[in-house]
Amino acid sequence: MGIKGEKTRENILDVSYSLFAEKGFKQVTMKDVCETVGMSRGGLYSHFSSTSQIFEAILEKITEKDALDFESEIKKGIPAVQILDKALSLLKSEMKHPEDSLGIAIYEYAQTVDSDVMEEMNKSGEKRWAKLIRYGIKTGEFNDVNVNEIVNIILYSYQGVRMWSRIIPMKQKTFNSILDNIKRQLTER
Amino acid sequence: MGIKGEKTRENILDVSYSLFAEKGFKQVTMKDVCETVGMSRGGLYSHFSSTSQIFEAILEKITEKDALDFESEIKKGIPAVQILDKALSLLKSEMKHPEDSLGIAIYEYAQTVDSDVMEEMNKSGEKRWAKLIRYGIKTGEFNDVNVNEIVNIILYSYQGVRMWSRIIPMKQKTFNSILDNIKRQLTER
Repeated sequence: MGIKGEKTRENILDVSYSLFAEKGFKQVTMKDVCETVGMSRGGLYSHFSSTSQIFEAILEKITEKDALDFESEIKKGIPAVQILDKALSLLKSEMKHPEDSLGIAIYEYAQTVDSDVMEEMNKSGEKRWAKLIRYGIKTGEFNDVNVNEIVNIILYSYQGVRMWSRIIPMKQKTFNSILDNIKRQLTER
Repeated sequence: MGIKGEKTRENILDVSYSLFAEKGFKQVTMKDVCETVGMSRGGLYSHFSSTSQIFEAILEKITEKDALDFESEIKKGIPAVQILDKALSLLKSEMKHPEDSLGIAIYEYAQTVDSDVMEEMNKSGEKRWAKLIRYGIKTGEFNDVNVNEIVNIILYSYQGVRMWSRIIPMKQKTFNSILDNIKRQLTER
C-alpha cells in the first residue's frame, strides 16, 4: 500500500473509532463509515470488507500501542515510578472521557465472534502491567506485592469505572481514589 | 394487593429478571414477559404498564435487599470480618455466574432514563460498604484504611469483572486474586 493508501486507512480507522465509541458496534454500518469518511463504497471496500474487519484493525492498533508503551520505557531505564505515574494519569484521562470508550462496542462485537480475540487483548494488558510491576519490584521502587492481584485490581477497577461512567456522571474524586489506592499499594512503605 | 396478587407480582419479577439477564433490557418486550410467565396481556398490565416499570421494580428489590444486609448484621454485633467474608463469597459466586448479571440490561436501561435511578443505586452500594468498613475499623478488626478508596476498589473491580466475564471466559483465580487483595488491605497488619 502506498503512502496515500496508508493515510486513507488510518483515516478510516480514526473515523470508525469515533462512530463505534458513540454508537456501539452493532449499530454502525459500512454505509455510516462511507458517509462519515466521505468516500465511495468502492473506495472503502478496497480497504475493509466489513465493520468487523475495521473493528479488529482498531483493536489491533490499540493493543500494539499499549504493548509497546512500557516495554520501550523500561528498556530506556526510566524509573518505574515515573512510568507508573504516566500510565495512571493516562488511565485517569480515559476515565474522564467515557465518550471515547470502546467498552460497549467491544462488548457488542464480542458477542459476534469467538472469544479468542478478546482473550488475546486481555492477556496483552495483563502482561504489560505485570512487566512494569515486576520491573519496579526489581529496581526496589515498588513493594514486593502480589503481582497478579495488583494487575487484576488495576484492569478490572478501570473497566468497571469506564462502564459506569457511561451510565452515571462520575466524580473526579472517584477516579483519584482508585488510582491513589493502586499507587499506595505499590509504593507506600 | 392480596396475597395472590403479591405472588403473581413476585413471579413476574423473577421471570423478567432472567429475561433481562439473558437478553439485556432493549430486547425484552411485554409480550416476551406474558409468554414466559404464562399469563394474559390484561393480567400482566394490571401489575405493570411497561418493561421499564418491571425493570425499576427489580432494581428496587435488589437495592433494598442489599441495603438491609449489612445493617441488620452490624446491629446484631456480628464481627466485621465475618460479615466481610460472607459478602466477599457472595461477590465471588456472582462473579462465577455472569449469566445472572443484569449488568448489560442496566446499561441499556440507563440509556432510556435520566441517570437519577442509577445514581441512587450506586450510592446505596457505596453507603452499605462504607458502613461495614467503618464498623470494622471501630471494632479494631480492620486497618485504619481510607474508606472511600476501598469502597471504590470493591465496587468497580467487581463491576469490571462482571462486564468482562460476559465477554471472555474468566478464571476462578482472577476472582480470588481481587477478593484476596481487598481482604488483605482491610485485615493484614
